[in-house]
Amino acid sequence: MKQLDWTNLAEMHKTELLESVMPFWLKHSMDRECGGYLHHLDRDGSIFCTDKMMWMQGREVYMFARLYNEVEKRPEWLEAAKLGADFLRKHGRDENGDFYFLLNRQGEPLRVAYNIYSDFFAVMAMLEYAKASKESWALDLAVETFWKIMARRGNPKGRYNKILPRPDLPSDHTFPMILLNVAGMMQESVKDDRFEELLRDCLNRIMTKHVDETHKAVFEFVWADGSRPDEPAGRFINPGHAIESMWFVMEAAHKRGMTDLVDKAAEAMLWTAERGWDDEFGGFYYFLDFKDRPIEALEWNIKLWWPHTEALIGFMLAHEITGRMEFANWYRRVHEYTFKIFPDPEFGEWIAYCDRRGVPTHFLKGNKWKCCFHVPRTLLNCWQICERMKGK
Amino acid sequence: MKQLDWTNLAEMHKTELLESVMPFWLKHSMDRECGGYLHHLDRDGSIFCTDKMMWMQGREVYMFARLYNEVEKRPEWLEAAKLGADFLRKHGRDENGDFYFLLNRQGEPLRVAYNIYSDFFAVMAMLEYAKASKESWALDLAVETFWKIMARRGNPKGRYNKILPRPDLPSDHTFPMILLNVAGMMQESVKDDRFEELLRDCLNRIMTKHVDETHKAVFEFVWADGSRPDEPAGRFINPGHAIESMWFVMEAAHKRGMTDLVDKAAEAMLWTAERGWDDEFGGFYYFLDFKDRPIEALEWNIKLWWPHTEALIGFMLAHEITGRMEFANWYRRVHEYTFKIFPDPEFGEWIAYCDRRGVPTHFLKGNKWKCCFHVPRTLLNCWQICERMKGK
Repeated sequence: MKQLDWTNLAEMHKTELLESVMPFWLKHSMDRECGGYLHHLDRDGSIFCTDKMMWMQGREVYMFARLYNEVEKRPEWLEAAKLGADFLRKHGRDENGDFYFLLNRQGEPLRVAYNIYSDFFAVMAMLEYAKASKESWALDLAVETFWKIMARRGNPKGRYNKILPRPDLPSDHTFPMILLNVAGMMQESVKDDRFEELLRDCLNRIMTKHVDETHKAVFEFVWADGSRPDEPAGRFINPGHAIESMWFVMEAAHKRGMTDLVDKAAEAMLWTAERGWDDEFGGFYYFLDFKDRPIEALEWNIKLWWPHTEALIGFMLAHEITGRMEFANWYRRVHEYTFKIFPDPEFGEWIAYCDRRGVPTHFLKGNKWKCCFHVPRTLLNCWQICERMKGK
Repeated sequence: MKQLDWTNLAEMHKTELLESVMPFWLKHSMDRECGGYLHHLDRDGSIFCTDKMMWMQGREVYMFARLYNEVEKRPEWLEAAKLGADFLRKHGRDENGDFYFLLNRQGEPLRVAYNIYSDFFAVMAMLEYAKASKESWALDLAVETFWKIMARRGNPKGRYNKILPRPDLPSDHTFPMILLNVAGMMQESVKDDRFEELLRDCLNRIMTKHVDETHKAVFEFVWADGSRPDEPAGRFINPGHAIESMWFVMEAAHKRGMTDLVDKAAEAMLWTAERGWDDEFGGFYYFLDFKDRPIEALEWNIKLWWPHTEALIGFMLAHEITGRMEFANWYRRVHEYTFKIFPDPEFGEWIAYCDRRGVPTHFLKGNKWKCCFHVPRTLLNCWQICERMKGK
């Protein structure tokens, strides 16, 4: 089996990140008039909606600040991060200090603070921006927001929760997965033993409840008693999400020397890849039903950018940590597919949505769900892994 | 131009309705153990989820009762309607008398009553069932629920509304469209002058606000002052919905001798058909942006059953009312596409979802959104039109 060409791959990821992707956001998404970022961007960067999702603001702050912290102290990156951080600080929160879901261009709220993931991404933004800017208010805001999330975790949607309590309410994979990531970031910036405790609890919850060794699958919804009823939620598999979660787990477990957990996450990543790959047209399906029963989502078989970018990080990292060639091979297969389908050399950045056959259904670069996040994070993380591997 | 073959078409719609579609629901969806209907049905009628949407319960009661009222006094149809009507009466409402969104199989609530369309379909169910069964409680429940909807209309989602008030909140096409239909049904069963007033108000709101003669388009969201900002909601077009609305309008306007309104709705139906048709692969797109900017919904270009069934009713009815051959031609084109793609002669009923090319992406017969409604309503309405046209 052929080794990956780390020098070439490093160069490729670096070039795509610094010459196509980040320049696109820097050129088109800065709202110097009202602050923050415009993120509903068409193929050429033109704006098709001026509403501002709080998720997306937080993610873009995080990316620009991280580039400043980890790549180079370019003033335009710090300035770009500051544009979003100041907007989040000034307009982002309601009277309780929770982050709104959506604002208009001017910063007036359009949707209440019902979604706790707005707050998670604000924490990521503020931690990274605090490191870049040395602004103490940003770190204070990260800490305050983090503990507010923890206080809300029992009922994150508050009075907007429409699900009536029932004994068998499922546990959702997303929460421990994001918390694992964010608690790890908090730990790097703030000394507090509770982060390690939370983090280990997330690792345990994901790997004992959501990763199912008997059925060789990662399930998104598992009930409180560990069971999964034979209904759509209990059968639901999200391959991209599962692979992303497994690389969060591997990274955290590897850092702690938990080799059993690393191996288990590696196996789960391989099952998921096998199950999620479309043998006929290539690429990962968006959603699957474990028993191949009908899937509720109309878009279950489309090919989107983010499951593929997360798989690129996942397989490269898994190869670095475990040394197993299966991961290099999976990386190669996903790389070939992803770089053929998604990048847009003409206008920069990547397209987001293709049908099952890989034919684009949209040409936009940013919308309610896509922004300056999965593509640059992947390019940066993979580039960093390549640099480490070059030295070995 | 060739006339439609009314005798053949009558027979075809009748056979599909009585020998494929209704037997499928009668055989697979009756829950004789817990009451109501199981409506998450796979291709062969097997159940893949036992949750019960209140919308879907109401729609199935309506269809079985209407068949009993308008086709034949078959005891099994009345009994099938009763199964759902009793379930709705017994389990459907919360302590305020509003209909829940979702129950479990046993009738325990899973989602609160945040969606006013659950109530609308309950009214339709109860009106039709009252006519079939002569049960006075059913008519009383229809009247009570109708006026509760009217009382809630200013803020139908109540405390679950996540949209913060802003001066330019858009008016949604769905509400006056469904109200037009349901107020017309109320009028047939209950003497009260307010229904005519409401109905004329809906006709006016749809035809002056949502139908835009300058731009030759039917828009789903129009702002209170009649404007449409250049943002996704203001540019949003739903061809199937617009055609369905136009046949509601034509039917109501024709009944009242409002010929100007009939003609205007006929024109709007033609613009929408031209704009909505996929010239490359056939069929109607699901969603469009008036300026061809990116559409938020990932599934904008898929081909679903209901826009096509509504177009069949719409074009046939428009042809009957106006005598214009354009509508016969459109009917023929949509008929050919629809009957090639959706019916499932092997297991009965129709499939629901295809990709842009008309390749099925799901084989289910019922889910959260598809149930015993659009297909049988179309087959029955078209059959009835054919019978009237045969006599001419």
